[in-house]
Amino acid sequence: MERQPYIRLNFDSENSGRPLNVEQLVHIIRRQIQSDGHFKGCRLPPVRALSLQLGLSKNTIQTAYDELRAQGLVESKDRSGIFVAKGGEPRFFESPINVPGPALKKIANIAPSKPKLNNAISLSSVFVDPRILPMEKLSACFRSVLKSPGIPESADPQGMPALREKIALRLRDRGMDVEADHIIITNGSQQALDLVTRVLATKIVGTEDPSYFLGKFLFEMNGIETIGLPIDPFKGLDEKIWQKRLSEKRPGLVYLTTNFQNPNGYSYSSSEISNIVKWAKEFNFGILEDDWGAEMLSYSEFKPGLRAMGGNSVLYMNSFTKKVLPSLRVGYLAANDKTIESLLMAKRVSTIAVPGIIEAVLFEFIDRGYYDTHLRYIQEELDIRYENCLGLLRDYMPEEVKWTSPGGGPVLWLELPKKVNLEMLTVKLKDQGVLIQLSNNAFFGEPHSHGFKIGYAFSSQQEMAEAIEKTSREIKRQMNV
Amino acid sequence: MERQPYIRLNFDSENSGRPLNVEQLVHIIRRQIQSDGHFKGCRLPPVRALSLQLGLSKNTIQTAYDELRAQGLVESKDRSGIFVAKGGEPRFFESPINVPGPALKKIANIAPSKPKLNNAISLSSVFVDPRILPMEKLSACFRSVLKSPGIPESADPQGMPALREKIALRLRDRGMDVEADHIIITNGSQQALDLVTRVLATKIVGTEDPSYFLGKFLFEMNGIETIGLPIDPFKGLDEKIWQKRLSEKRPGLVYLTTNFQNPNGYSYSSSEISNIVKWAKEFNFGILEDDWGAEMLSYSEFKPGLRAMGGNSVLYMNSFTKKVLPSLRVGYLAANDKTIESLLMAKRVSTIAVPGIIEAVLFEFIDRGYYDTHLRYIQEELDIRYENCLGLLRDYMPEEVKWTSPGGGPVLWLELPKKVNLEMLTVKLKDQGVLIQLSNNAFFGEPHSHGFKIGYAFSSQQEMAEAIEKTSREIKRQMNV
Repeated sequence: MERQPYIRLNFDSENSGRPLNVEQLVHIIRRQIQSDGHFKGCRLPPVRALSLQLGLSKNTIQTAYDELRAQGLVESKDRSGIFVAKGGEPRFFESPINVPGPALKKIANIAPSKPKLNNAISLSSVFVDPRILPMEKLSACFRSVLKSPGIPESADPQGMPALREKIALRLRDRGMDVEADHIIITNGSQQALDLVTRVLATKIVGTEDPSYFLGKFLFEMNGIETIGLPIDPFKGLDEKIWQKRLSEKRPGLVYLTTNFQNPNGYSYSSSEISNIVKWAKEFNFGILEDDWGAEMLSYSEFKPGLRAMGGNSVLYMNSFTKKVLPSLRVGYLAANDKTIESLLMAKRVSTIAVPGIIEAVLFEFIDRGYYDTHLRYIQEELDIRYENCLGLLRDYMPEEVKWTSPGGGPVLWLELPKKVNLEMLTVKLKDQGVLIQLSNNAFFGEPHSHGFKIGYAFSSQQEMAEAIEKTSREIKRQMNV
Repeated sequence: MERQPYIRLNFDSENSGRPLNVEQLVHIIRRQIQSDGHFKGCRLPPVRALSLQLGLSKNTIQTAYDELRAQGLVESKDRSGIFVAKGGEPRFFESPINVPGPALKKIANIAPSKPKLNNAISLSSVFVDPRILPMEKLSACFRSVLKSPGIPESADPQGMPALREKIALRLRDRGMDVEADHIIITNGSQQALDLVTRVLATKIVGTEDPSYFLGKFLFEMNGIETIGLPIDPFKGLDEKIWQKRLSEKRPGLVYLTTNFQNPNGYSYSSSEISNIVKWAKEFNFGILEDDWGAEMLSYSEFKPGLRAMGGNSVLYMNSFTKKVLPSLRVGYLAANDKTIESLLMAKRVSTIAVPGIIEAVLFEFIDRGYYDTHLRYIQEELDIRYENCLGLLRDYMPEEVKWTSPGGGPVLWLELPKKVNLEMLTVKLKDQGVLIQLSNNAFFGEPHSHGFKIGYAFSSQQEMAEAIEKTSREIKRQMNV
C-alpha cells in the first residue's frame, strides 16, 4: 500500500446506517472537499476504505468518484489514488498549524537521576544488592504462570484477590486487623502514598523531619502543608516538640515510617510507637504507616507497628519492590471498611490496575514459599553486611564520628563533626569512585543532622571496606586541616 | 522460633556506634521498661537480636539481662524468652488503642464493576475479544526476555529507552513531530491522562459531550471545571456551539479523542481536525489528543490527527492495552521539550515507573514485528465484525432505529426512537443474557443522544447475531406498545 496520508470524510449526517446511493455520496463528498479550500491536492480515501466504512460495494464508491472526476472536482494520479483537484501540493498535510502549548505547572526536577559512574561504589543506596535478589526464582514463577494459567486477560482494579488474601494473612500474623477486602495492590509503595494524598480531605500532613523526600514533595505538589516532626537519628523523637507541633497544627494525617526511615535509618522503639498512637487519639489525627523496612530486619516480624497498636483505622502501606525486585513495582495499601472505597476509586482514575501478570507472578512467588525463604536469606545476608559495616566503622572512623545501630536492615546514619564540609566530601569521594548522597531536600529547612546515610545492603563486603576506608581517610584529611 | 511479639528498644541516645558496656546496657533497658507501665509483662528482645543490633557478644547481652533479673526487673519464662517483670498479661500488645481514621473525601463508586453473568453477551464493550489477542506471541516474548537479557533489575522512570525509540519512530511515520525523549511510558492511557491533570496550571478543561467518563471524573475529582463540547454521533461537532463555548469559557486545555470516542464511537473528519487546530490558535487552548482508536482501523495510519496537524505542543496519548492485552497496562504520553520535565516529575511522584519486564516484553513484541502483524490481523478481523454488525443491524432493526458508520474499529452508536425506554430495555435484555451499557454519566447533564454503544470487536459473529436479534425484538416490542 502507498503510505500517503488521506483525509477522513464522515457521512453519517445523512446516513441512518442504510446504504447510501451514488447521488448522496457525490453530494456529501463534494460538500466536504469544497468546504475548505485547503484540502486542494489532498488524497481522498481509497475506494476500499470507503466501501468498508459505508458497507457499500466498491463499484458504488468507484461510480461516485467517477462522477466527481467528470465534474472536475477530483483527479486520479498515477497509481497513488484519487485527489482533490486543482491542487498541486497537498496543503492540509504539509503545513501544520502550531497550536499553543497547554499551561503546565513548572515542576523542577528535584530528584535527578543517580549519577552513573562505571565501577563506582554507591555508599548511600537504600536498595538491596541485585546480586542477592531472587531473579532465578522469579523467572521460574513467570514461566509457571505463562504455562498455566497463562497471562491474565484482565486485571482487577483492587488487585488479584488471591494475592490480597496472601497479604492479609501475613499482616494478621503480625498482629494487624486486616482482611483481603481492605487491601489495594499498588504500583509500588509510591502509588499507595499517592492514593492517600488524592483523597485526603484535610490540607495539613505531619511527617518526620527528615522525611522520605518523594513523599514530602508529593504532598507539597498537591497543595498540602507539611509539618516536620523532628527525628534525631540517635535520640529518636522529641516528645515535647512533637506534642507541641501536633497540638498547634492539628494535621489531619501523620505519615510515618516505622522502620529504617529514609534518609536517617531510624526505627521507632515500642515506647515511641505507644506514644504516637496515644497522641493520635489525643490530637485527633489519622496515621499512614509506611512499613517498607519491617521484613528486612531479622527477628522483626513481631515487633508491633502503628497499625498493630492503633487499630484498623491506621492506613498501612508496604511494598515488595525493595525486597523482591525494584523493577516489579508492586506495593499495597491496607485500609478498612470505611476508607477502602474512596481509595479504590482513586486508583481507578489514576492507573486503573497493576499489570495482571505481575500480580500473578508475585502470588506464585509467595504461594511456593519462595518469599519466606528469600526473606530469611536476605535477612541473614543483611545481618552479615550490617555487622561487617559496624566493624569497618569501628576500625576506620576517627573518634569524633558517630553512627547509629538500627540492627540489620539496609541503612544507618553516619554523623560527622561540623567542621567536615559535606559538599566537599561528596566531590572528593566521587573523584575516588565512592558515591555518597546528601539528604538536604529531606529536611524541613536547615538540616539538624550533619552527615549522610550508609546503605550496607547494596554493596558487597569488599566494596564496603573500600568505600569506608576511603571515606574515613577523606574525613580525617578534612578534620586535620 | 517462638512467634510471640517483643518490644523494640533503642540504644543510640547513649551510643556513638562503639561497644556499650554491661552497665550502660542495664541502665538503658531499665529506663525504657520503667518509663511506661504498660510494658509490664511484655517480652524483651531475644539475646541474639540485641547482640546483632548493638554489635555486642551474646555473653554481654546475657550478662545485662542477668543483672536486670537480679534486680527483679525482668523474668525468664519457660523457654519463651525474657519478659518485663510484674506482668501477667502483656498489656501493650493485647490492648491496641483505636486511633481515629483519617478524614478522606467521599468518592462514590461511579464505575461499578461490570456485571458478571455466565454466558451473557456484552453488547457494549469497547474491548477487543480476548480470543483474538496475541497471547501466544506475548508469552513467547516473555520467555525470550526471561532467557536473555533477563528480568530488568530496575526501571527507567521515563520508560525503557529502546521502547520509547520504537514508539517515536511509529509516530513520526504517522506525521507527528516526536522524539524518544518526548515520550513517557505510562500505566495505561489512564495514567497519561492523570499526569497531565496533575500538572495542569489552569482550572478549566474542555472535552467532548458525551466524554470518556473516567477522564471527566478524573478532572472533576481534581477540582477542574469541565466544559462539554457537544458531539452528535451522526452530525459530529456543532461549529457554532463549540466556538461559543471555547471563546466564552477559555479552557486552558481541551481533551479530545480522535477516533472511536467512548461512548458514541465518533471519529473526527479531517475537516473537523482542521477546525479544532484553528480554534486552538484562535482561543489559545492546549490540546490533549487521545488516539487509542487509530490503530484499530484499517487504512487509518495516515489520516492525520491533532498532533500531526497541530504541531508538537499538542500532548498526545495512546495505549497498547486494548490492542495487545488489557492486563498489560502500558500506554504512553508524547510531550515536547517544554512540557516533558513537569510531566515526568508527575510520574515519579505518583508511581515512579512501569514494571521493567512489561516494557521489555512490549519492546520485544514490537521489535520482532509481532505488533504490526497483529495489528493487521485485528484490523482485518474487526473489519469483518464491523461488516457483520452493519449487516445484522440492516436485517433486524426497525426503520426508526439509526446507527453510525465509523468504519471498522470497535464501536458504533445505536440511536433509538424516544419512545423506547432505555432503562427498561437494559433490564429486559439482561434477563435474556444480553448486556448493554447506558452512558448517562458520560454526558454533561441530560443526554442529548438516546441510545447506546455497540462494541462489535468483543463478541463473535454468532454472539453478535444473537444479541442484535434479541435487542431488535425487544425494541420492536416496546415500540408497538
